[in-house]
Amino acid sequence: MKLLVVGSVAFDAIETPFGKTDKILGGAATYIGITSSVLGVKSGIVSVVGGDFPQEHLDMFTDRGVNIEGIEIVKDGKTFFWSGKYHNDLNTRDTLATEVNVLENFDPKIPDSMQDAEILLLGNLHPGVQLSVLEKMHNRPKLVILDTMNFWMDTAWDILMDMIAKTDVITINDEEARQLSGEYSLVKAAKKIHEMGPKYVIIKKGEHGALLFHNNKIFAIPALPLEDVFDPTGAGDTFAGGFAAYLAKKGKIDFETMKSALIVASAMASFTVEKFGTERIQEVNESDMFGRLRQFKELTTFDVELQ
Amino acid sequence: MKLLVVGSVAFDAIETPFGKTDKILGGAATYIGITSSVLGVKSGIVSVVGGDFPQEHLDMFTDRGVNIEGIEIVKDGKTFFWSGKYHNDLNTRDTLATEVNVLENFDPKIPDSMQDAEILLLGNLHPGVQLSVLEKMHNRPKLVILDTMNFWMDTAWDILMDMIAKTDVITINDEEARQLSGEYSLVKAAKKIHEMGPKYVIIKKGEHGALLFHNNKIFAIPALPLEDVFDPTGAGDTFAGGFAAYLAKKGKIDFETMKSALIVASAMASFTVEKFGTERIQEVNESDMFGRLRQFKELTTFDVELQ
Repeated sequence: MKLLVVGSVAFDAIETPFGKTDKILGGAATYIGITSSVLGVKSGIVSVVGGDFPQEHLDMFTDRGVNIEGIEIVKDGKTFFWSGKYHNDLNTRDTLATEVNVLENFDPKIPDSMQDAEILLLGNLHPGVQLSVLEKMHNRPKLVILDTMNFWMDTAWDILMDMIAKTDVITINDEEARQLSGEYSLVKAAKKIHEMGPKYVIIKKGEHGALLFHNNKIFAIPALPLEDVFDPTGAGDTFAGGFAAYLAKKGKIDFETMKSALIVASAMASFTVEKFGTERIQEVNESDMFGRLRQFKELTTFDVELQ
Repeated sequence: MKLLVVGSVAFDAIETPFGKTDKILGGAATYIGITSSVLGVKSGIVSVVGGDFPQEHLDMFTDRGVNIEGIEIVKDGKTFFWSGKYHNDLNTRDTLATEVNVLENFDPKIPDSMQDAEILLLGNLHPGVQLSVLEKMHNRPKLVILDTMNFWMDTAWDILMDMIAKTDVITINDEEARQLSGEYSLVKAAKKIHEMGPKYVIIKKGEHGALLFHNNKIFAIPALPLEDVFDPTGAGDTFAGGFAAYLAKKGKIDFETMKSALIVASAMASFTVEKFGTERIQEVNESDMFGRLRQFKELTTFDVELQ
């Protein structure tokens, strides 16, 4: 299946207890595109960058087989820029700067070459922009995956509800699931979110793993315990990318395939945090991924009498 | 194998958002003894209670096949009492009262009938008391399991280190592992704790599951996602009891058996939180446990190509 990704292509400047970077390549769609290419999946990105965005980054996407016809270049505009500093535990961070720039008036344009995408991954953007993408698709994709965050719950509730109603799979973190549903228990939260529209609810818990809910079924995975987390930036985007790309690769959309997709998602995200930005997942190949999947199998497999 | 449990047998008064209790049966050794009996494992408790401790509770232990020769009754003393109130999220609580009473001068006495126990579970007590138990055993048990907490790290560091050095398996929560090791990463924390003595390190993460570390191997389990947690009191003790009792039942002490033991531990703990105090695990039988083990299998089993 073909995967269409709508999301930011951006610059980040990151500071962690281990060091800091200048402006480096970032953005949700960037992580998702690279992750898809590691899995050998054809993806296309719809996004917008400024005239300051280097050709080498665009070439990098093309070299990886990522369709960039949908990346609009606003010659006299500047690329979205985010800067942040992580605290010592790497679980919390301060945003130092957010320059929305060309993303402010982002009007997504879907190239004809991507109109036949069967999976649509809507990266974390204003829900109004996400909705407009869905309206611009000539046919509704077989699967619509939505990434969103608490900011849109605070500032754009009604339109977010419209978007969620048209979503098949939603990915949010545990605190956001609680905010969205008004329920503390994640089991209850997922039930309420099901009622809002999504048939599949993925709750990300960072270092504690993730949960997948579908009807009355639940699947849980731990995160791979890591000796060092170097830079968490992009882990959530890599996770979403690994999940969507695996479904596209298998050409199947069901609970069982999504369980495997979650493992692949978590394995890919475990690479991202090992170096700054996209550095590590740019080095990774499919064989590295299989190595990490074997670690997951070892981490989680047990044998116990069931009667 | 025979399981010897040293720990509190006590009264608790519990308040949760769902209701409150008068003084009810509590204490680490109580939860552990009951859990062991559900698994059909012969255990014995070493503890101390006051003259106010009802005969019916002692009879309950005996009826379940728990050896209570090691429970000293101080006729003119009062039983340990704890009272606490849980906050709305049930993850945090305030202690309203702690009356140490007869536990203040607890001098554990190991009955001859339990001297041949092969597994010793030292419940959360002063590490000096824990050490004295080990010294009173004629032969060192095959496996010494230690439960401890941050309070002893703050108040009895040196003797806690002596105790930990003589421990095979330590069970602590994630914050305690960080405090004990001075490492934020749980992988690094477990390595440092290995160096202190324990060959096996279990890190409990409450609703996020648990990790088992042994040499360079790691096993991770999620907690069973629950719609409602009614009362978390005793969940950690039930967990420790389920773990130790499973090893005793299997008569095996190795990493593979401990993985299964962790699943049983978590399954048993998932019962405890469903009602106040020991109420729920007193109702449970082995067939109920198998039902929950099947739920665990379903929750965690996935299939993914590994090459």
